[in-house]
Amino acid sequence: MAPPPSTVVSPFVSLIVRILTFVCLIISLILLTTATGTASNSDYGDVKIKFKDFKAFRYLCAATVIGLVYTLLQTALTLIHLSTGNRFGGDGLVYIDFYGDKVVSFILATGGAASFGMTQDFKNLIVIEGLDISHFIRTTEAAASLCLLGFLFVAISSIFSSFSLPKRA
Amino acid sequence: MAPPPSTVVSPFVSLIVRILTFVCLIISLILLTTATGTASNSDYGDVKIKFKDFKAFRYLCAATVIGLVYTLLQTALTLIHLSTGNRFGGDGLVYIDFYGDKVVSFILATGGAASFGMTQDFKNLIVIEGLDISHFIRTTEAAASLCLLGFLFVAISSIFSSFSLPKRA
Repeated sequence: MAPPPSTVVSPFVSLIVRILTFVCLIISLILLTTATGTASNSDYGDVKIKFKDFKAFRYLCAATVIGLVYTLLQTALTLIHLSTGNRFGGDGLVYIDFYGDKVVSFILATGGAASFGMTQDFKNLIVIEGLDISHFIRTTEAAASLCLLGFLFVAISSIFSSFSLPKRA
Repeated sequence: MAPPPSTVVSPFVSLIVRILTFVCLIISLILLTTATGTASNSDYGDVKIKFKDFKAFRYLCAATVIGLVYTLLQTALTLIHLSTGNRFGGDGLVYIDFYGDKVVSFILATGGAASFGMTQDFKNLIVIEGLDISHFIRTTEAAASLCLLGFLFVAISSIFSSFSLPKRA
């Protein structure tokens, strides 16, 4: 008979990592969605700027929302594990954890990196063009950084879930 | 006695995935390093543009080089496995594969995404500013896309190496 599914780390450690992921992603989403700026330029006058005006920031928003929904679900499952002592879903859940952590970590890594990369070169550009949207850029840069921090926590969860895979000899 | 280390897929399949990774990354690196453009603007005159002028592209360059070195090393190890029938390095290599694939996949994902995200919003910006560097942007966009394709192949390798981990019950 196959041994029962087990996890490498205690569910309590898993829970802490999930909560840290959630905190990073929720702050990232709040910063991103509330960031506004006014670009003042002699050619175009005043233009209101929001995160929706940039493709990279729209992707970051989608990535953090996906990450938040997934983390909430995993937190609920870990709480059930902690309270009942049994892992909800049994064997099949090990694979859902494994592929879920992998896919969500890649979504958060690309979401954070796309926006962070953009803000770094955008900072130079707004200096050249004389636009005054440095506060907007700093806020979105913080949102991207927090998404990357959230990604690191999901990557840790991903290491846990990889080691929990049953061995296929 | 513990069972000998085994891989989930045949070394031949591993080799094909590594070669596909290598092809994507080498073309990405060539495209990136050879991309040049001339920005003509009434305010600044003609300005030569290279990938080194952008932080995101410099990171993409570093990411593809790290990916290439790692992929070459893994290809050599897989060739030894194929020719001798034995896995070089034994048990310890399973962990190096696991962490190596994980870290390199994250480096390539963030490298590709940072540059791809930047090019998408940069495209709109150069239209507004009347700069004629669309060829440069298209080439770097292709380099970033190929890096992301290379990342997908490393992610597949990462799934293989995760399943090859010994079970810790």
